[in-house]
Amino acid sequence: MSVCIPFTCRGNRSIWRNNQRELSTANRIYQKESSVLQTMAPILLNATGTDHSDYIEQEEVHVKNPHLDSMEEDILYHLDLGTKTHNLPAMFGDIKFVCVGGSANRMKSFAQFIHQELGLSGDMAGIRDICAGTDRYSMYKVGPVLSISHGMGVPSMSIMLHELIKLLHHARCRDVILFRIGTSGGVGLAPGTVVITNQAVDSFLQPQFEQVVLGKVIVRSTELDKGLAEELLSCSTEIPNLPAVIGNTMCTHDFYEGQGRLDGALCSFSTEDKLEYLHKAYDVGVRNIEMESTVFAAMCHTCGLKAAVICVTLLNRFEGDQINTPHEVMLEYQQRPQFLVSRLIRKRLGLIQ
Amino acid sequence: MSVCIPFTCRGNRSIWRNNQRELSTANRIYQKESSVLQTMAPILLNATGTDHSDYIEQEEVHVKNPHLDSMEEDILYHLDLGTKTHNLPAMFGDIKFVCVGGSANRMKSFAQFIHQELGLSGDMAGIRDICAGTDRYSMYKVGPVLSISHGMGVPSMSIMLHELIKLLHHARCRDVILFRIGTSGGVGLAPGTVVITNQAVDSFLQPQFEQVVLGKVIVRSTELDKGLAEELLSCSTEIPNLPAVIGNTMCTHDFYEGQGRLDGALCSFSTEDKLEYLHKAYDVGVRNIEMESTVFAAMCHTCGLKAAVICVTLLNRFEGDQINTPHEVMLEYQQRPQFLVSRLIRKRLGLIQ
Repeated sequence: MSVCIPFTCRGNRSIWRNNQRELSTANRIYQKESSVLQTMAPILLNATGTDHSDYIEQEEVHVKNPHLDSMEEDILYHLDLGTKTHNLPAMFGDIKFVCVGGSANRMKSFAQFIHQELGLSGDMAGIRDICAGTDRYSMYKVGPVLSISHGMGVPSMSIMLHELIKLLHHARCRDVILFRIGTSGGVGLAPGTVVITNQAVDSFLQPQFEQVVLGKVIVRSTELDKGLAEELLSCSTEIPNLPAVIGNTMCTHDFYEGQGRLDGALCSFSTEDKLEYLHKAYDVGVRNIEMESTVFAAMCHTCGLKAAVICVTLLNRFEGDQINTPHEVMLEYQQRPQFLVSRLIRKRLGLIQ
Repeated sequence: MSVCIPFTCRGNRSIWRNNQRELSTANRIYQKESSVLQTMAPILLNATGTDHSDYIEQEEVHVKNPHLDSMEEDILYHLDLGTKTHNLPAMFGDIKFVCVGGSANRMKSFAQFIHQELGLSGDMAGIRDICAGTDRYSMYKVGPVLSISHGMGVPSMSIMLHELIKLLHHARCRDVILFRIGTSGGVGLAPGTVVITNQAVDSFLQPQFEQVVLGKVIVRSTELDKGLAEELLSCSTEIPNLPAVIGNTMCTHDFYEGQGRLDGALCSFSTEDKLEYLHKAYDVGVRNIEMESTVFAAMCHTCGLKAAVICVTLLNRFEGDQINTPHEVMLEYQQRPQFLVSRLIRKRLGLIQ
């Protein structure tokens, strides 16, 4: 197997360290010859030096499902991928950073942006949607970075995450970090501020995610990696015009009534009721509201994946409900979480100090 | 304004009866000249005869939000439409049937199919996505039929419905019927069976939808129109190779653990536990499981809209969890709810007996 080194890995903080032996082992689990054209060859670093097998053992992606081992084939239905039809270790084995966001177009733009940022060779326009066989999600691979859309709301995020985590497991990925980069409503912040989530809280302002399993409610922690959040905040200070704060993020299951908006098809409360709710949220540290962070935090935490949530605020909810920011301003805002995550990735890869 | 009559409306059951006077009234609420090209001219029937103003009054689309009247502009953000930028009555005033489904591709196919079924003139390939400015949802208008995608899960459906119901309200639509046409997991049914929903029940098998509003749980009825369900079942008997039943539909917030699947990234229960849950559901009349029906039923019911849920089953959950039906079989299955709804629409329009 050939080793391609698209750029030099510098610095002690790089965690992108696959070597040929590891990938070869990973490939042995792939039993059947794939008939599918591999859309992108894995990009490997020729990691010399330290043997870090113990470290790798700890950082493997964990699925928490004893039934998976006994399955002959695993069809990742909503991603249009499978263990028998695709060589997942070869296609995805070198993934170190996964960035997820609601909009398919935005995640395509992010893939093109990160391609440029990492200084990779090849035509940016040639980056193909790996999930083109389905319109449920879009997925792009750029070197060690995977960019995937998740649609809107907890259930849509949850389906994607189940299949993504199984994908990372089947592909024998190690040391993977996940980022949700999205948009949100701000609480007491100037529009355009980026919120790096400290705690994801639910509509009752509790730092937990409730999941119904076989008719019973299971509660999961929504703890995120505090070190990663601090690292992102530090990166933000190095980028001009990128106001960022660490704050709590409220995750709701509805955009209108669920977020106290007065402009839905249904609304049974007053402006005063709305503001009382938002102030209560503000008082427990909530600085933005979106619709996916709790399940993202909970599933990553349960599976031992380091994760961060970085959302830009499109409006200040103390001042209104409608999103009427001009289109070009909105586009600039939406790039801010991308700039931040790109900077962290490049630092971690040793591309910048 | 010109009146075009693309096909003859026959029979007593037709409810598609806008006249010029009504549309002219509706247009008066549009205060600002639209700069946007209207993608499709409304199709009107020259309804002569009975004055049915009382009937119309009862059948108007009701938003339940007193705040809306005082808003100068309403931006339907996720549909990329607005009351100041678009002439909603002119664009949508003649809508009588709204069909919603998860996948954008499928709802485009449905629009092309219904164009053919209604015998409309014009190029089918020219049917344009009205929401092309955003990738959140796709929307197509074909005569009196609107076809919209809603993504996966209750929150994604809920955002679309809030904005759709406001759209129908702003456009002064009357006598509108909504159909959800989708896919689902079957419970004790042969794959390919179409389930017309009697009651939408939640994960606890209750016929209700819980919505958190300002941190408090509000419970809404998920009652659907029983007459409409019977009418659909009757239509199914007239179509060859279209097995259909009326049954209850369970709506969950997760595809894997939430539906008792053993093949997610997380699973903490046994095959026996799973089957016990599914049998319990079967015993209260559940025949299929999907992820949007409760909020669809609840919001339509609250806003006085007649609605039906028609989903084909892709597998029998008593026999497995993975969806491994061949692609071409799956495509045929997915057309079944479309055939059924098309037949009902054509009957209601008097195109067939």
